[in-house]
Amino acid sequence: MSDKPIDFYFEFASPYGYLASLAIEEVAGKYGRQVHWRPFMLGAAFKITNSAPNMTIPMKGEYLSRDIIRCAKMMNVPIAIPDILPMNSLVAMRAFYWLNETKPEVSVKLAKAVFRGHWVEGRDLSSVDAVALEAEALGVDGNAFVEAVQHPAIKELLKQETQAAIERGAFGSPFFFVDGEPYWGHDRMDQIEYHLQQGAF
Amino acid sequence: MSDKPIDFYFEFASPYGYLASLAIEEVAGKYGRQVHWRPFMLGAAFKITNSAPNMTIPMKGEYLSRDIIRCAKMMNVPIAIPDILPMNSLVAMRAFYWLNETKPEVSVKLAKAVFRGHWVEGRDLSSVDAVALEAEALGVDGNAFVEAVQHPAIKELLKQETQAAIERGAFGSPFFFVDGEPYWGHDRMDQIEYHLQQGAF
Repeated sequence: MSDKPIDFYFEFASPYGYLASLAIEEVAGKYGRQVHWRPFMLGAAFKITNSAPNMTIPMKGEYLSRDIIRCAKMMNVPIAIPDILPMNSLVAMRAFYWLNETKPEVSVKLAKAVFRGHWVEGRDLSSVDAVALEAEALGVDGNAFVEAVQHPAIKELLKQETQAAIERGAFGSPFFFVDGEPYWGHDRMDQIEYHLQQGAF
Repeated sequence: MSDKPIDFYFEFASPYGYLASLAIEEVAGKYGRQVHWRPFMLGAAFKITNSAPNMTIPMKGEYLSRDIIRCAKMMNVPIAIPDILPMNSLVAMRAFYWLNETKPEVSVKLAKAVFRGHWVEGRDLSSVDAVALEAEALGVDGNAFVEAVQHPAIKELLKQETQAAIERGAFGSPFFFVDGEPYWGHDRMDQIEYHLQQGAF
């Protein structure tokens, strides 16, 4: 069997990305796999699929606000629908890739803190100051943080990661690649587990 | 507990509608519920949600052609991707509602035959002749069939059912209402079962 890491693409503003973030490590770990966390700019994919943030879509938005609550209940995990939807997560994504360069374990902790702050505590984590506080709580230097998330090289890094995600076929959140095979949605965890257990379909 | 029927809205051209058609009766029956089969013109909902047939959407179409196969495999049911996507199912839907007026049990048998013919045998069931053959195999008079599916009253009936579905909030296939509560997707069967067992979320 392969021991390649599972690529986990997500958008912080995506409730299903949040739900997946609570499940993927356990499934991966059961089969000796690592998880590569990869936030990306979902809006760039929406331009290709002619889509839009879920909650802004007529009929679908109203429905999904129920589905999200039910999915969380089925998983027995907390969720609260934040007032601000969708949140602008550019700063959080840039912060993630900056930390990922030197302290990958801290970048994953930051991702979890942002998901929790937004989807459990309902906070708006779109500003530099708000995300900086989360990073500082993880021991990151605040001044270095503020500088980094505004640095052209970090902005470029996020663009490149987003472009790479789209070129691989990611158009939603969460989106996984297991041995190169694409899986979309927190509700495909059963297929991912099947793949990890039996090999690709 | 309620004994209200489960409303099962679907589009014959929808692979997930087909998959749901193979599962919903067993789940409903387990909790003493009937299933009301309700084909509707999904395209009319797409106008509201600014969506399009799945397979025609860049990136998503290619992905879903894999997902469909995998979902069928997880359910251990047969599926084949037909050459013609999406099939025009107007005739099949009109035939369904015509039969449903006088012989509801035959209308459900026709729905199952159309799903099977298209999604297992890969046949194009868009023409009057093709659907008539399916109906005749169920003992329906061919001449009466041809007349009925072109009758203004039957066309109107389908329009009304579609309008009613959309007014209730159905925007995808399959779409269920359990005690008025909406569920979208064959992959929400676990939530439907939870609802049937415990009551609404």
